[in-house]
Amino acid sequence: MEYRKIKDEDEVRDGALEDVEKSFLLSVPDNNSSSGRETKTDIHRTKAKWKRKSVVTLALTVLTSSQAILIVWSKRAGKYEYSVTTANFMVETLKCAISLVALGRIWKRDGVNEDNRLTSTLDEVIVYPIPAVLYLVKNLLQYYIFAYVDAPGYQILKNFNIISTGVLYRIILKKKLSEIQWAAFVLLTAGCTTAQLNSNSDSVLQTPFQGWVMAIVMALLSGFAGVYTEAIIKKRPSRNINVQNFWLYIFGMCFNCVAMLVQDFDAVMNKGFFHGYSFITVLMIINHALSGIAVSMVMKYADNIVKVYSTSVAMLLTAVVSVFLFGFHLSLAFFLGTVVVSVAIYLHSVGKTQR
Amino acid sequence: MEYRKIKDEDEVRDGALEDVEKSFLLSVPDNNSSSGRETKTDIHRTKAKWKRKSVVTLALTVLTSSQAILIVWSKRAGKYEYSVTTANFMVETLKCAISLVALGRIWKRDGVNEDNRLTSTLDEVIVYPIPAVLYLVKNLLQYYIFAYVDAPGYQILKNFNIISTGVLYRIILKKKLSEIQWAAFVLLTAGCTTAQLNSNSDSVLQTPFQGWVMAIVMALLSGFAGVYTEAIIKKRPSRNINVQNFWLYIFGMCFNCVAMLVQDFDAVMNKGFFHGYSFITVLMIINHALSGIAVSMVMKYADNIVKVYSTSVAMLLTAVVSVFLFGFHLSLAFFLGTVVVSVAIYLHSVGKTQR
Repeated sequence: MEYRKIKDEDEVRDGALEDVEKSFLLSVPDNNSSSGRETKTDIHRTKAKWKRKSVVTLALTVLTSSQAILIVWSKRAGKYEYSVTTANFMVETLKCAISLVALGRIWKRDGVNEDNRLTSTLDEVIVYPIPAVLYLVKNLLQYYIFAYVDAPGYQILKNFNIISTGVLYRIILKKKLSEIQWAAFVLLTAGCTTAQLNSNSDSVLQTPFQGWVMAIVMALLSGFAGVYTEAIIKKRPSRNINVQNFWLYIFGMCFNCVAMLVQDFDAVMNKGFFHGYSFITVLMIINHALSGIAVSMVMKYADNIVKVYSTSVAMLLTAVVSVFLFGFHLSLAFFLGTVVVSVAIYLHSVGKTQR
Repeated sequence: MEYRKIKDEDEVRDGALEDVEKSFLLSVPDNNSSSGRETKTDIHRTKAKWKRKSVVTLALTVLTSSQAILIVWSKRAGKYEYSVTTANFMVETLKCAISLVALGRIWKRDGVNEDNRLTSTLDEVIVYPIPAVLYLVKNLLQYYIFAYVDAPGYQILKNFNIISTGVLYRIILKKKLSEIQWAAFVLLTAGCTTAQLNSNSDSVLQTPFQGWVMAIVMALLSGFAGVYTEAIIKKRPSRNINVQNFWLYIFGMCFNCVAMLVQDFDAVMNKGFFHGYSFITVLMIINHALSGIAVSMVMKYADNIVKVYSTSVAMLLTAVVSVFLFGFHLSLAFFLGTVVVSVAIYLHSVGKTQR
């Protein structure tokens, strides 16, 4: 626990982070409970943190909605002409580059110190490839699940992610949700699924047993990857987020590079790396990179629960914006799902007081 | 307020009834708050009241579900051969008869007193026809709304009843629901509507403005009739429920008699009153009569909110039972709606502690 020696007192006093840290490390004595003094600086700090949490959550919501809209737009413009693996690799590279630029500015301002230096111990770095591996396994499974479920059915089964994230968040990060917050989480799952219902949705009920098992395994993998990322990032609260992101993304680059070589080696060699890239491809890469960074920020300054609510709201926002952009029609099921999700958000915030 | 002189102390000490009474009469001094003694008898009494409340709620749920199943059964058996107005009249008559029989047994046991005598003051009786008139107006409107909405669309719009009952319950009976209970009520509406979704449900969104207005007016009339009935019944808590039912149903008989003469005079004269009655017709009449009495009992010993939850659960139960009886298929929307309704029931009970 070497990092504790040098960590910033300001960061430690952050209630939310401290909670997780305590539950994660299980052995940190609480030195602040007896202080009892709430100075102007403390209030200012709490406000600043609340503001930061809100900004990253809002950023994630807006970026996720625009991401889905860009996908619809690109589909309308025609099928993908470029290699998807090169685009994924570019996303990881861009995220890595943005983290390094941000880090450069911090070094210029504050100088290099223990919290923001890029070099790291093996002990710190060894856990960073794990989320990347989990996502890789999940993406591989994704090819196989389509043997049992069609694409719209898969969209509906993906809502298991919400429940699995909640359960793993509780088990791994040992953070408690109140009973009302659990009820809200069940409603969030039901509401999101309702909003996605269409005339063919009932076919998902005919999913064979293997399909259900794979959907649940994939939801657990995805939820575990998310919660594990939060655990990694929050384990060292004083460590600069850009350094943590750099290490996350460098492994992302490695894994995507392997995927690119395996799947699209010939295409890249013959047609070139950037073959088929259009303006919208570039926009999508930038958007995915910024969304990825927003997710990391939400993990650092908020948590997986906030992430799940944020992406659920983004899903609803996307549908509403698509009405204006693409002339989509909203179904009655969408309205009902939106009502249920709204009540879930309200209950989640009301439920906090009951923890 | 003559009835207060003679009312049963046991009844007055019932918290739930007393609450309503206070808010309804607005001028009753509270003589019990200083007592502070909770004897064994009190606990026994509370338990007995809780048991009575549960029994009437369960009865209403079971009767309402079997009612819907009988309707499906009778439809499968062929179209109605009998005059619907004669059946309605028979329902009111049977309810009246059952109330009188119950009353006769009570007179035999306890003798005739101020609470269970059938004769009444004009002041007491004058309000009893009002719910019957409200239901009559609502039923008349029902013929006109089909000019704007189809039958499945009307089933969906009928869920406005849930919200209107909650709002009027708050306004007229001045009983408060906690914020979480309001959230639960919104969820109950959304959940019931979701459970009823089918591939044609979206057509309800094309309902013209007049259709929406009529649906809302009908929901308000229906909600008002329900809440007003509760107010009438609870205004005199010590008055025997069978006397109150007798007066409610005697006016129901009058109004249905008028409807029968206006609509089916010729049919009844030529073919006879009981023309076209079958075994299932008799079962439906008995079921409707018992359901009606169960509604009154719920109004007396519980409230309109319990009634709404009870009939919503009955709607879901009906669908499940229909799977076994008629080979119906349950949709994904039904499952999602059931989850939302279940969470709503949970939240309603949890929300009580927050009032």
